[in-house]
Amino acid sequence: MEQFECSAAIQVLPAVEGEEVIRVVDEVIAYIKSTGMNTYVGPFETTVEGSFDQIMDMLKECQRICIAAGAPSVMSYIKISYNPGQGVWSIDKKVTKHH
Amino acid sequence: MEQFECSAAIQVLPAVEGEEVIRVVDEVIAYIKSTGMNTYVGPFETTVEGSFDQIMDMLKECQRICIAAGAPSVMSYIKISYNPGQGVWSIDKKVTKHH
Amino acid sequence: MEQFECSAAIQVLPAVEGEEVIRVVDEVIAYIKSTGMNTYVGPFETTVEGSFDQIMDMLKECQRICIAAGAPSVMSYIKISYNPGQGVWSIDKKVTKHH
Amino acid sequence: MEQFECSAAIQVLPAVEGEEVIRVVDEVIAYIKSTGMNTYVGPFETTVEGSFDQIMDMLKECQRICIAAGAPSVMSYIKISYNPGQGVWSIDKKVTKHH
Repeated sequence: MEQFECSAAIQVLPAVEGEEVIRVVDEVIAYIKSTGMNTYVGPFETTVEGSFDQIMDMLKECQRICIAAGAPSVMSYIKISYNPGQGVWSIDKKVTKHH
Repeated sequence: MEQFECSAAIQVLPAVEGEEVIRVVDEVIAYIKSTGMNTYVGPFETTVEGSFDQIMDMLKECQRICIAAGAPSVMSYIKISYNPGQGVWSIDKKVTKHH
Repeated sequence: MEQFECSAAIQVLPAVEGEEVIRVVDEVIAYIKSTGMNTYVGPFETTVEGSFDQIMDMLKECQRICIAAGAPSVMSYIKISYNPGQGVWSIDKKVTKHH
Repeated sequence: MEQFECSAAIQVLPAVEGEEVIRVVDEVIAYIKSTGMNTYVGPFETTVEGSFDQIMDMLKECQRICIAAGAPSVMSYIKISYNPGQGVWSIDKKVTKHH
């Protein structure tokens, strides 16, 4: 299994009403998937694994997408796990056995 | 689909070394599943949906389980969504279409 | 200096508009201070230190206060540090030298 | 009072032992202050306000500093509030009246 130096999760709360939240969040998730990184969508956050640089770029872009999609503002909650020497535990290692 | 008043996600970081983290986290996940609530295990957090009282009791117990499992201390990161009138969006609504 | 077994921080996002957010958050902060625990108000979260049981009760009540103050729903973000044997680092130890 | 488009808070958990955590976290806080942005140090996170680009660069650098300071890995928890049109509420507005 490929070893990644970084894994991160992001939740965006775009300041729009009701079902509009889903429309904006779906745009963010579509963008994250379009990066080609392994992606895991959960109820409160979407997780990726990859290189530190690529992930930090992606995290920044997620906020811009919320604004471009029509939200006047956004709150984001991010977790980053970074281990440049040994790599982080994979998404697969952490979730597969529980499903 | 059943409507729940609350949904919450928890990540525990028990202060143990290496693969011991996985052993303790697995005990916490087993406990969460044993509550009978709908449970969704992700790479950085486990999400449930149910009644506010049951969820708050569960969140408290997760910490005790880490200590009982041998961790001298624990850091936890929790998100709670609570809507007693209309109910919260279900886990299923938020993730199924993305898989 | 007194040693506490637990320290926690909470951010509440009541689903109300504009300056109403401040009114509801102020009610939550007033409640937290009324518990008598050491309290530290920051821009995104309020931190306390005390007993695990008292803190878990307080965290639960914060959500109810948002609803009672008029918010139909609330999202909360919580960090909990728990070390029943040796106690956690105090708020004072962590911030005073930086001010 | 100056209006900023972005405010963010970061907590780093470098994977080092005991008081070493404080040494590494202090390096991160010293770096954040060195950016010249308004900075607010709390028990679990440090908050800044400024431009979105500057803040995102800073958040990335915090992780590198933990590794450069000797931690083999780091977990970070980040909150970002971004409002490019109207600006975000200032740190001062959110905390001063509570002190």
